Amino acid sequence: MTEPLKIALAGLGTVGAGVIRLLDANRDLITRRAGRPIEVVAVSARDRAKDRGVDIARFEWVDDTTALARHPGADVVVELVGGSDGPALTLARATLDGGRAFVTANKAMIAHHGLDLAALAEERSAPLKYEAAVAGGIPVIKGLREGAAANALSQVYGILNGTCNFILTKMEEEGRDFAEVLAEAQALGFAEADPSFDIDGVDAAHKLSILSTLAFGTALAFDDVAITGIRHVIAADIAEAKALGYRVRLVGVAEAGPNGLFQRVHPLLVPTAHPLSHVVGSLNAVVAEGNFVGRLFFQGRGAGDGPTASAVVADLIDIARGEYGPPFAMPADQLTTLPPADAGDRRGRAYLRFSVVDKPGVLAEIAAAMRDAGVSIESLIQRGANPDGSVLVAIVTHEGPERCVTQALERLDGSASLVGKPMLMHILDA
Amino acid sequence: MTEPLKIALAGLGTVGAGVIRLLDANRDLITRRAGRPIEVVAVSARDRAKDRGVDIARFEWVDDTTALARHPGADVVVELVGGSDGPALTLARATLDGGRAFVTANKAMIAHHGLDLAALAEERSAPLKYEAAVAGGIPVIKGLREGAAANALSQVYGILNGTCNFILTKMEEEGRDFAEVLAEAQALGFAEADPSFDIDGVDAAHKLSILSTLAFGTALAFDDVAITGIRHVIAADIAEAKALGYRVRLVGVAEAGPNGLFQRVHPLLVPTAHPLSHVVGSLNAVVAEGNFVGRLFFQGRGAGDGPTASAVVADLIDIARGEYGPPFAMPADQLTTLPPADAGDRRGRAYLRFSVVDKPGVLAEIAAAMRDAGVSIESLIQRGANPDGSVLVAIVTHEGPERCVTQALERLDGSASLVGKPMLMHILDA
Repeated sequence: MTEPLKIALAGLGTVGAGVIRLLDANRDLITRRAGRPIEVVAVSARDRAKDRGVDIARFEWVDDTTALARHPGADVVVELVGGSDGPALTLARATLDGGRAFVTANKAMIAHHGLDLAALAEERSAPLKYEAAVAGGIPVIKGLREGAAANALSQVYGILNGTCNFILTKMEEEGRDFAEVLAEAQALGFAEADPSFDIDGVDAAHKLSILSTLAFGTALAFDDVAITGIRHVIAADIAEAKALGYRVRLVGVAEAGPNGLFQRVHPLLVPTAHPLSHVVGSLNAVVAEGNFVGRLFFQGRGAGDGPTASAVVADLIDIARGEYGPPFAMPADQLTTLPPADAGDRRGRAYLRFSVVDKPGVLAEIAAAMRDAGVSIESLIQRGANPDGSVLVAIVTHEGPERCVTQALERLDGSASLVGKPMLMHILDA
Repeated sequence: MTEPLKIALAGLGTVGAGVIRLLDANRDLITRRAGRPIEVVAVSARDRAKDRGVDIARFEWVDDTTALARHPGADVVVELVGGSDGPALTLARATLDGGRAFVTANKAMIAHHGLDLAALAEERSAPLKYEAAVAGGIPVIKGLREGAAANALSQVYGILNGTCNFILTKMEEEGRDFAEVLAEAQALGFAEADPSFDIDGVDAAHKLSILSTLAFGTALAFDDVAITGIRHVIAADIAEAKALGYRVRLVGVAEAGPNGLFQRVHPLLVPTAHPLSHVVGSLNAVVAEGNFVGRLFFQGRGAGDGPTASAVVADLIDIARGEYGPPFAMPADQLTTLPPADAGDRRGRAYLRFSVVDKPGVLAEIAAAMRDAGVSIESLIQRGANPDGSVLVAIVTHEGPERCVTQALERLDGSASLVGKPMLMHILDA
C-alpha cells in the first residue's frame, strides 16, 4: 500500500488552502500514519489567479468543479465549497454515484441531504466522511460514531458555534451589549458580514441535527430543531445570570426518550460548576451522556482553517487506512424515526427578564400571570430605571413544566406594562 | 455480515462483569452499530462459583485462561486479568500469534510489552486494541490515533489517575491532609487497599507512555518516565496554591522536541483558567496540542466498570466493523526512538515549600541558596508556626531553567534549618 491516496479538491477558500498547507507541512508524518502518501492531484475553485498563500500551480486546475467527480486520477473528492445545495450537492452525488470516496466540511448539506448521500454511499460502497462538519477540529463525529458506540446515549448537547460563544464571552467579560460586540467580532473576522446563520442559531442547528443522528440512531431531522439565537440577549441578562452563578451560552441540546426526539438550539443559563461554563471565546465543546460511559466531554477549536483542515485530513487518513464504514454509524436504512418531543412536557427552571414601565401595579401583573399559569417564582430582582425610563425585572422560576412558563408569557403578551418582548432562557441543571 | 462476532472473555472482575452487562443491556443497539451481533461464547476466571451479578452459566467455562487463545469458537479474546506479565501476557502472545483479535484494558502490559505485541499483531494481521487502557471511557486512544492523526503533536498531558484526582480534590475542598483523605478514599472504594500504584504515579506513568507513543510516533519508553506521586502533598501546599490562583493536580506530561522526549508524572500547579483545573473528583482528562488543530481537550470517567466496559466494547465494535489498523497508528517498525530529554533544560516557574526551624537566619539561608543557584524569587510567604513548632515557607520562582531550582535544593540538602524534605512542584503556564 505505497500507492498514494489521490485527492481532488473542490474549493480553495481558507479551509481549502489550509488542507494544502497541512498536507505539505506534515507530509512525512501523515505518510507514516496513513500507511501511504496523501497527495492532491487536482483542484477547482472560482478564481484561478487569486493568491491563497499556497502554491497551486503544481496541481491540475479544473474549471468545472462538478467534473472533479469523474476525474480519472482521483481516489477521493474533498468538497469545501459550502452551501446545502447547488454545486456542492451535485458534486457529492456524482462522486458517490461513481463509487468514489467523498469528504466534506459542509454541515448544511449533511444536515439537509445526509441521509440520501449516506444511502447512496452505502449502495456504491463508497466512503462518505464529514468530521469537519461539526465542531471543527474536535473529533466528535468519531467520538460518537465509534468512541461512544457501545452506549445508549440519552443526551448530546454542546456549544457548536464559535462566533456566538465569542460574542457571549466578550459581553460577559466587558459588560457590553450585543450589537457593539457583534460589530467588533465582525471587524476581527470572528463573525461574517452577514452573521445571521451564526447568531440566529441555524449553523448550530445544522450541527446538532447531525449529532442527534449519530447519538440516537434516528434519521436526520433538521426541520424539527427549535431555534433561538442570541440577538436578544442583553448585557443585563448576562450580569443577572452571573450574579446567580450562571453563564449564558448558546447551547444545542438533543435528547431521545419515550416522548420522542427533542432538539433545540437556544441561549441557556449554564451553572459555573458545569464544564460548558468554562468554554470561552470561539471554542466549541460537546457533551454526551451514555448509559455506561457516563458523561463524555470534548473541547477544542470549532472553526478556522487549521482545525477544519485537521478534521478533513483525519478523514483522509481513515480512508487511506481503509478504516471507514456507514457514515451514520449504522446503515442509513436502519436509522429510526422518532416524533418531535413536545417541549411543553419538559421540566426545568427558567430565567425570565422583562423590561417594564415604571408605574404602580406592574409587578403585581407579572406575578399574577405567573400564578395563573402555575409558575412558582424562586427569586425576583427588580433593578432601577434603564436609560429609557423602563425598569428591569428578572425572575428565576422553580422547577416546573415549560408549558406553564410559555403560558405565563402568553398571558402577558400585548400588556401595556411591558416595554419590548420578554426574554426567556432555560437553566441547565446538571 | 450477520455472523456474530464471538468473544472469549478472560477475567470476570468488576470490568469483566461490566462488559457482560453492557452487551446484554445494549444488545440491539450494538448489533445495529456493529453491523452484526457481538456475543460472548466462553469465559475464564479464577473462581467459577463467585456471584458477579451477571449470569455466566450460559457461557462455556474454561478453567485454563490461556487456553482461550486457541478456543475454536472465538473471533476475539478480551483480556481483563491485569498484570504486566504472567497469564495476561501469555494470553496476549498466544492469541495474536494465532492471528486472532485481542482487546485489553491492561495499561501495564501495553506500557511494558506493547511494541512486541504490536509487531506480532501486524505480522499476523491480527487486530490489537486497548482503548480501555488509558483514561477509561474517554476515547483518547482513538482521539490521538485517528482524530488528531493529521497533526504533528508537540505535547500531550493530562490527569490520568482518578484516585489521585479524587484525593487532591477532596484535600482542596475540605482542607484535610493526605493520609486522612486516602483512608476515606479506600473506605469508599476509590482507592485500592495497596494504593501505591496509584498514589505514587506508576499507573499514570503507564498511561502516559502509551499516549507518548501515539502522539509522537516514538517507541514506548516507560522506563524513561520520571515519576513523583502525591504522598508528600500537604493541605498547606494546596491552600497556598489556591491563594496564588492554582489547583494541584497529578499530571502526566509528555513533549517531543529537538532535545528529545520528555515524560514526567508529577503534582503540578494548574492555573484556574486552564481546563485541567476544573477536572474534579475521579474524572480523567487529556490535552493534546497539535500544529493545526490547536488544543484538544477530552474529559470523562477514567475508571469503573461502566466506563471501562464502554471502551472495551467500542474496540469490539471497531473490530466487528473491520475498522482497525496498526495499534500505534503506524507500523511498529516505523516508530522512532528519541533520547530522554534533560529536564534541567526546561524553563518554567516552580513552587517550593519548606518546613523550617523557627530561629533567626533560616530565611536568609534559603534566600542565599536560591541566589547562589541563580533562582529568582517571584513571591515568598512565611506562615506562623505549625503544631510541631516549625514554620512554613512557600516560594514561587520566576521563570528559569529547572536545573537551577534543583541546584538550590541540593544546596539546602542536609541543612539543620529544614524540618523534613522540601516540596517542589512545577507550575503549568498555559
